[in-house]
Amino acid sequence: VRARTQTQVAVTSDHESWILLNCSPDLRSQIETTPELHSQPTNGLRQSPIAGAILTSADIDCVLGLLHLREQQPLELYATATVCKIIREGNSLFKMLEQKPEQTRWTPIEPGNLISAAGISFRAIPTGGDYPYYVQNGSRSGLAEDSAVIGLIAGTHGAKFAFLPGVREIPNETLKLLDSCDLLLMDGTFWTDDELIRIQGGGRTAREMGHMPVSGSDGSIERFREVRRPRKVFIHINNTNPMLNENGPEYRQVRDAGWEIAHDGDQFVIGDL
Amino acid sequence: VRARTQTQVAVTSDHESWILLNCSPDLRSQIETTPELHSQPTNGLRQSPIAGAILTSADIDCVLGLLHLREQQPLELYATATVCKIIREGNSLFKMLEQKPEQTRWTPIEPGNLISAAGISFRAIPTGGDYPYYVQNGSRSGLAEDSAVIGLIAGTHGAKFAFLPGVREIPNETLKLLDSCDLLLMDGTFWTDDELIRIQGGGRTAREMGHMPVSGSDGSIERFREVRRPRKVFIHINNTNPMLNENGPEYRQVRDAGWEIAHDGDQFVIGDL
Repeated sequence: VRARTQTQVAVTSDHESWILLNCSPDLRSQIETTPELHSQPTNGLRQSPIAGAILTSADIDCVLGLLHLREQQPLELYATATVCKIIREGNSLFKMLEQKPEQTRWTPIEPGNLISAAGISFRAIPTGGDYPYYVQNGSRSGLAEDSAVIGLIAGTHGAKFAFLPGVREIPNETLKLLDSCDLLLMDGTFWTDDELIRIQGGGRTAREMGHMPVSGSDGSIERFREVRRPRKVFIHINNTNPMLNENGPEYRQVRDAGWEIAHDGDQFVIGDL
Repeated sequence: VRARTQTQVAVTSDHESWILLNCSPDLRSQIETTPELHSQPTNGLRQSPIAGAILTSADIDCVLGLLHLREQQPLELYATATVCKIIREGNSLFKMLEQKPEQTRWTPIEPGNLISAAGISFRAIPTGGDYPYYVQNGSRSGLAEDSAVIGLIAGTHGAKFAFLPGVREIPNETLKLLDSCDLLLMDGTFWTDDELIRIQGGGRTAREMGHMPVSGSDGSIERFREVRRPRKVFIHINNTNPMLNENGPEYRQVRDAGWEIAHDGDQFVIGDL
């Protein structure tokens, strides 16, 4: 199995200004291995091509990398109001992003909303899922249920792609929308619903953790079978998922169903950019 | 200049059980490049050689990597009571370390205290310094001033070394103690007191940020001149510090004064281990 860092995507419509989709704990090393994201020395100041980030949940995997950006600014940050509250009010570490007035600007994005960043439009869609474990019962009251985890459909220059790193369930009407995309980056965390329970001898199912398994009659390969137009790529793959083994039957099954499995450094060009 | 990841030290007295000194944001990749820290499959469970960690401050550089350990347990964690409070009460993310009763155990360590972990004794010493920016005025009341940043003197098998990643000032009696060490890992963040101000056109001095500069009549090279016994190594070096350039006069000055500059992967063996 080829080693992978934690899921991180960066998008651009002009090769100059980039938007991060989530901020992985490995963001620092990921930026280092990606010359397009390196700071440009302009006017004696460090100028980063990273214009901002959209967070799709409050999971550590999605937000921790923000703290790697604490010396870059200004940053445009987008998240649902509740995810924003968890980060900014529940975790003082993130005040490092607010040392200067213009360091960061937060804008709420809720399921159904459309925002525009770096010349790309992003529509938030509901994908099920829950607030992470660290948001304890006492602080959950008043947190909107469908704002815990979102997916994104991004469009620019007539091209469209979907970023769906955490999908528990996907409404039928959303499936239709996804069929109009050129590219689908989809939650491939677990192969089966009981994957971690079998390995650890206890714990929660994939769906309880907010992830539709890849295999099975209600898994994502079956669920997305009628989504034919886009190139379909699994991302956010746990190291317990047997489809990572390129010599195994699960990998074969995924490829035969028309899906790809993402690697570090993959680049996807859509539209006539 | 050779690229370096953020400062991280791991110590052992038996090559089996390791204690981390701080938990850097780069900890995950640092563990990956260090086979001694890899999990051993024993009895079907993931067994990590990492027994615990001692935190010398609440700086992001010192604590963020804890979140990379959220799937490892049990962990013995040590910090001053105030640093512990900042982490556990001010940042809900760290509840990921308390999902199971035996996942982590926190033990306070204050300046002057001696604790024992993995067969090594650690004495906390005061090194000046302050709570990080993210601990805002409102939450600072009641936080003991000399518990913000500590250094450590570690001993085992008759050998001793000091870990001092954040030193604003060092008392004379501590200097004498340090002269009995075999190895000194010392704060080399900045070359001059006004280093960042000159580069950024504003901001705080090195000392205001809790770091004694390396150069100058009150810098660490001069201050530690009478500390002759230990091997002296600079760690925690900011990428603005000109001594990183091995072709420059500052590097020469450091080496001529008997100091070394640490690199990723450095190993130090002391005593008759």
